[in-house]
Amino acid sequence: MAGKNAGEDRKGMHGQICPRIYPIEDWNVTELSFERENNYRNETTFALSNGYIGTRGTLEEGYDFSIEEGLEGNFVNGFYESEDIRYGEWNYGFPEKSQSLLNLPNGKRTRIFLDGEMFDLRKGEVRSYKRTLFMKEGFVRREVDWVSPGGKAVELVFERLVSMTHKNVMAQRVIVRLLDERKPEREEESGKYKVRKIKVQSYLDGDVENHTRKTNPLVDYGPFGKRLETERCEASEALLYYEGRTKKSGLRIGCGVATEAGWKNSGSGEGEEMPAEPLECRVETGGCYAKAEREFAAEAGKELVFDTYIVYFSSQDASGSLYDASVQECGRCREIGYERLKEEQREAFHNFWKYADVKIKGDDRLCQGMRFNLFHIMQAAGRDGKTGMGAKGLSGEGYEGHYFWDTEMYILPVFVYTAPEIAKALLEYRYSTLEQARARARVLGHPKGALFPWRTINGEEASTYFPLGTAQYHINADIAYAFSLYVDVTGDETFFMERAAEVLCETARVWADVGCFAEAKGDRYCICAVTGPDEYNAIVDNNFYTNLMARENIRDAVKALERLKGMGEEAYPEFVKRLGITEEEVAYWKRIVENMYFPYDEKREIYPLDDGFMMRKPWDDSRIPPEKRHLLYENYHPLFVYRQRMSKQADAVLGMLLHSNLFTMEELKRNYDFYQEVTLHHSSLSTCIFGILACQIGYYDEAHEYFSKSARMDLDDHHNNFYAGIHAANMAGTWLAVVYGFAGLRTNGGKLELKPYVPEAWEGYSFTVRYLGATLFVESSHRERCFVLTEGKELRFWLEGKEIILSEKENTYREEI
Amino acid sequence: MAGKNAGEDRKGMHGQICPRIYPIEDWNVTELSFERENNYRNETTFALSNGYIGTRGTLEEGYDFSIEEGLEGNFVNGFYESEDIRYGEWNYGFPEKSQSLLNLPNGKRTRIFLDGEMFDLRKGEVRSYKRTLFMKEGFVRREVDWVSPGGKAVELVFERLVSMTHKNVMAQRVIVRLLDERKPEREEESGKYKVRKIKVQSYLDGDVENHTRKTNPLVDYGPFGKRLETERCEASEALLYYEGRTKKSGLRIGCGVATEAGWKNSGSGEGEEMPAEPLECRVETGGCYAKAEREFAAEAGKELVFDTYIVYFSSQDASGSLYDASVQECGRCREIGYERLKEEQREAFHNFWKYADVKIKGDDRLCQGMRFNLFHIMQAAGRDGKTGMGAKGLSGEGYEGHYFWDTEMYILPVFVYTAPEIAKALLEYRYSTLEQARARARVLGHPKGALFPWRTINGEEASTYFPLGTAQYHINADIAYAFSLYVDVTGDETFFMERAAEVLCETARVWADVGCFAEAKGDRYCICAVTGPDEYNAIVDNNFYTNLMARENIRDAVKALERLKGMGEEAYPEFVKRLGITEEEVAYWKRIVENMYFPYDEKREIYPLDDGFMMRKPWDDSRIPPEKRHLLYENYHPLFVYRQRMSKQADAVLGMLLHSNLFTMEELKRNYDFYQEVTLHHSSLSTCIFGILACQIGYYDEAHEYFSKSARMDLDDHHNNFYAGIHAANMAGTWLAVVYGFAGLRTNGGKLELKPYVPEAWEGYSFTVRYLGATLFVESSHRERCFVLTEGKELRFWLEGKEIILSEKENTYREEI
Repeated sequence: MAGKNAGEDRKGMHGQICPRIYPIEDWNVTELSFERENNYRNETTFALSNGYIGTRGTLEEGYDFSIEEGLEGNFVNGFYESEDIRYGEWNYGFPEKSQSLLNLPNGKRTRIFLDGEMFDLRKGEVRSYKRTLFMKEGFVRREVDWVSPGGKAVELVFERLVSMTHKNVMAQRVIVRLLDERKPEREEESGKYKVRKIKVQSYLDGDVENHTRKTNPLVDYGPFGKRLETERCEASEALLYYEGRTKKSGLRIGCGVATEAGWKNSGSGEGEEMPAEPLECRVETGGCYAKAEREFAAEAGKELVFDTYIVYFSSQDASGSLYDASVQECGRCREIGYERLKEEQREAFHNFWKYADVKIKGDDRLCQGMRFNLFHIMQAAGRDGKTGMGAKGLSGEGYEGHYFWDTEMYILPVFVYTAPEIAKALLEYRYSTLEQARARARVLGHPKGALFPWRTINGEEASTYFPLGTAQYHINADIAYAFSLYVDVTGDETFFMERAAEVLCETARVWADVGCFAEAKGDRYCICAVTGPDEYNAIVDNNFYTNLMARENIRDAVKALERLKGMGEEAYPEFVKRLGITEEEVAYWKRIVENMYFPYDEKREIYPLDDGFMMRKPWDDSRIPPEKRHLLYENYHPLFVYRQRMSKQADAVLGMLLHSNLFTMEELKRNYDFYQEVTLHHSSLSTCIFGILACQIGYYDEAHEYFSKSARMDLDDHHNNFYAGIHAANMAGTWLAVVYGFAGLRTNGGKLELKPYVPEAWEGYSFTVRYLGATLFVESSHRERCFVLTEGKELRFWLEGKEIILSEKENTYREEI
Repeated sequence: MAGKNAGEDRKGMHGQICPRIYPIEDWNVTELSFERENNYRNETTFALSNGYIGTRGTLEEGYDFSIEEGLEGNFVNGFYESEDIRYGEWNYGFPEKSQSLLNLPNGKRTRIFLDGEMFDLRKGEVRSYKRTLFMKEGFVRREVDWVSPGGKAVELVFERLVSMTHKNVMAQRVIVRLLDERKPEREEESGKYKVRKIKVQSYLDGDVENHTRKTNPLVDYGPFGKRLETERCEASEALLYYEGRTKKSGLRIGCGVATEAGWKNSGSGEGEEMPAEPLECRVETGGCYAKAEREFAAEAGKELVFDTYIVYFSSQDASGSLYDASVQECGRCREIGYERLKEEQREAFHNFWKYADVKIKGDDRLCQGMRFNLFHIMQAAGRDGKTGMGAKGLSGEGYEGHYFWDTEMYILPVFVYTAPEIAKALLEYRYSTLEQARARARVLGHPKGALFPWRTINGEEASTYFPLGTAQYHINADIAYAFSLYVDVTGDETFFMERAAEVLCETARVWADVGCFAEAKGDRYCICAVTGPDEYNAIVDNNFYTNLMARENIRDAVKALERLKGMGEEAYPEFVKRLGITEEEVAYWKRIVENMYFPYDEKREIYPLDDGFMMRKPWDDSRIPPEKRHLLYENYHPLFVYRQRMSKQADAVLGMLLHSNLFTMEELKRNYDFYQEVTLHHSSLSTCIFGILACQIGYYDEAHEYFSKSARMDLDDHHNNFYAGIHAANMAGTWLAVVYGFAGLRTNGGKLELKPYVPEAWEGYSFTVRYLGATLFVESSHRERCFVLTEGKELRFWLEGKEIILSEKENTYREEI
């Protein structure tokens, strides 16, 4: 659907645990043999990104697999193509142009030939094979011991990284290590198995297109086809270069590939390297490809080290010639060299893990899952203030690369507490689209304020199905919530004044216009015709989550205005003048805050999902054939789905979690119990949230079960669709599940609270959070809890209600249990 | 929208009274001069149909007007073309093939040349012009006195009829009457203005296509283009013939044109006619046209009478060769002759008016409007049991020729009381689609029963926008209501047993599955996620109209089963066995009937439109710029519209009217007052219904105002879109407004009730109704009321609660006031 299920459950066997294919390790994920049927999925597992470039973990040899077996994918965050959307029936305000993250030219293909025999895993003998994702260091290495059909033996090492320190750069290294040749059977054949020449073929392929539409039954606005028109395509010894322009969005991309070859003494590790001069270098270009073939005379006792630098420049953020930028960046890469790039990569990842790592002691399986999840969201988040984070990061074409509420509600809290500079960059991106959100609010009939789009890349609404798209107004409050959270946790006053206050007020304005005080509901403020997070109940009145989040959005706006008043003489008057905020307007906001309506079931004493929820048909799974149960929208008409009293995913429960300070424990329990019964968890955004609330109300076993599913959802491919890309929100949700869940971290009451609990199955866990400029390391086991202030002058927090103050002097608090 | 506003208000100046362009007459509508700017509209005014063929009132000369000025249109009821529908996002159960009533080859074009000068109203001098729709007789005549640019004077008479007695036939007559020529200025030029040769060019044009999509912004599934592939196209002296097959639906249409020419003595009226032999007859064909040109030597004192027979045969109901059928039918027409066809037409119309005419005395303007309306619905209704009646009849391409609920709820009651054989044919059509409705119910997840499509031609759902399409489940109850009404009013027992009982039970089954007994509503039966008739409030819970109609649908099904029990030993057991109806099922139905939930506002003591209605934003017209007020869906996003507390059209009010016996007068008044305030009447289906209820509660002035708008809506083009076709439902609504409204006719209490009232502005009115085999003539004035049994043995009715019995002997009841 427009929202979050397109493709999600497509081939789904949701809930079924797929065979684990990687051994349990702490910091690595390793593939031990090449199995063609796992290829598609492994392309996502080994996908790399730096938040700008994203590349799928395809193999350097560039196999011609079908679209059922694999998908070559190279993306640049924010680089999209448009086309005219066609509707069964058009309505005013329906988006007219689509946005699709475009699959870009591929420069990774590097083929190795031994005296003319091409390295191919499908041929000859693979004597050993290992591919490892080094999550701690941020790169992938593949080692293959291979004997060609002609009997030539070689050890090949492939490394790849997408640079965290040079946003336009991806780098690859291939090491060709000739092995002692076999002795031939007859003496006159001496040297039969000796390799004389090594040829390396570099290939930059501009004949690329998106494939999602071929495999996704719900996307229905036409075949996509090839969307780049070649503007320059050339090959020289120094550079392979492709430049193309998209047909509709008019964006240009330049992709350059430069290489460097050297010899090393075999077995010398990372020692001195000598330049390798090819015997011959042949270059060639076609309509949209550029190729270079270098042939080297094999040297005894030496291994060939072949480095490839692939750079991408987009017209969206390079001002001058894309070609010049590519030439320059490739030159810089050659100067820096692969080794140094890798060193920088290690440092960058070290810096990330220093704050982000969550160690689960006593369960390596979950620990590995957790790190895998953190690795993927960390690498995929846009960090340039011009891009967000897609629901599938940059790991595939799923959801057309769109940014949803996932960013703000699932991903962002992780960064707020561990890498606030990334959180800030993501919010800067949203802020940069505020003008478009204002325009969108007008389209929806709101005279003031801003309405953020449900799904977008460029800031415009791209949802083609408004019941599960534009109707999800809650994204406005979600974004406002994220701005508040960032400011509350980081204390970033400049950002508050320059960004957050404006976003809070502009989003509040839409909430103040969308509903009304209804006499029929005791003059409470009602909001009709919206869709909450739950996509199985669309176009409803008074969705609990929406009303709650809207109220808090407005409350935060009111608070922001109060706070501005305290920030010097000029701040407040200038702000209200600029936005034209009147006292009457603020008074109206306050009235809404005090009089928000919430659906309530007197008998059960719970908050139903929305006004109509308790009137819908009790859900009866048995009426649904098993194979259709997790694919509701593909097997049932939306109206059938809307009429059932069930929920796809955490909805009211998420609201109660985010504002848990506003509810009593009894309320939380009653509501949790109710929603636990009616929620199908057909979205990957659901279990982590239930797990957290389960912790809060002491349902620890249930919480542990939810967490276990959540932590390895992608690594074990529970949804059987990992091939299509990561489930970024759930990945972030596992961090939340430990930190918000088991450790009970909350800041929603205005102070840092903790209430660590260690599940019985574990020995303990540790993690780090950053709060108001300080850094707190938390370690909890069944025996004790330990809190260390590792950075900052002072930190005050509440441990199960007890105030603890750490300082530089007394930086540790330890408590036995 | 999917429903009924596509195009309706497109160019609208809704509510504004356009200049009246026809003089007030009792039985005719006359155009007194040809004004190009009125052409498009006049094409609808003078459109003719027999329920099978429909043709727009285009001129025989075949002008090359732009699509802003006119639309040649020839249709065969039920003949449609399909194409693949494309959606912004596809969902399960969305129709995959469209259905569009196809604009067919045109055989009307008949051009007259006087010595080579072509008759053209835009050239030369038009000395007089008159076109008249003879509603009493069922044909159109145009008389033009014209002098060519070359000074030749002629009187031309064009007549056209679409035969009520030969469903495949349309006939045209042209009379060319040469006038005394002017004397030239110089004697040597004697004879300069004398016409020597008359050429008649007949032209069958297969190069046709639909144009709606070019002018309708809401239809958005691609350009339509030419859809007929020519299979045969030929011209001979005897016949012009075109046969083509649609590209996607695979239907074939054959169209033949035959002509006959004769001489008459000028001024001899309809006397003896002599065959006219042409000097020359040239025939010609191109890729998809066939042409014949006949040249006649002018004869002094004689006028040329040129008759054209145009026949259409479709593969949908002709079993053999379409060509053979066309040849045969053309031959038959020649035998019968134009005069006789016209005579038959007169008789057929006489027979119709005998029962259908409503005479309004003292207001010729309204009387003319009423007759115009009745004429159009009468001629356009399908009467072969295989076709229904489109929302625009067969007068244009609007709504793609689809059949909606309009047929059953607006059109059908008129026929039930005046032409039950047409009512029956329309219901037979619905019954013929029952299997498709059963299949559709499965698609919507209902294990039993039938769900009729919101819009269709071939019985499949063709709505491309489910919030205003498939969600309008009420059509199921509407159709059931119509079956009940027909049986109740006609007493047709065979039809009850063979058709109605099954439809009632199958529709009831969907109602019994769609909702549930909700604890939260006191265990009342609730129906969620439907759209009522009101299209400004979509996907709502417990729409009052829907719940009411659903309950009555189920009640009628229960009654039908009871009635079957009394119809011989076999009827009931066979019926329940065939449909698999169990006692538990019927018990469940009864429980629903007894426990249906209705939204109720305690304070106002009214029934809101639906559960959420009272929470929506009070409508504020002043926020909407005047030019956008009547085009809401073209200027506002659906979500904006859904959130307003206003109603597009009669919704709850219609339900209360149809079941007025279930409400007290006070209830009706309170609800009417409430809806009167919140209803915008942006649908043409609204005012007539309000007018009727206004009568019932004694708001006669208001009723008269509503009626006045309704009666001349199309003739005066109030919606400024009459060019696109008739508003059939409103046309029928004006009959209802007099008979149900001012005369207070009801049968919903199980007996015929009347309560005639004459508006002050009128002298009186008269009409006829047929009830249980008898015919009652009703005449009412300010002085007296008179009731005459004109057919049948006995009739019992209640006049303002007083029982009156008329019989053959005492066939008149008269009462002074």
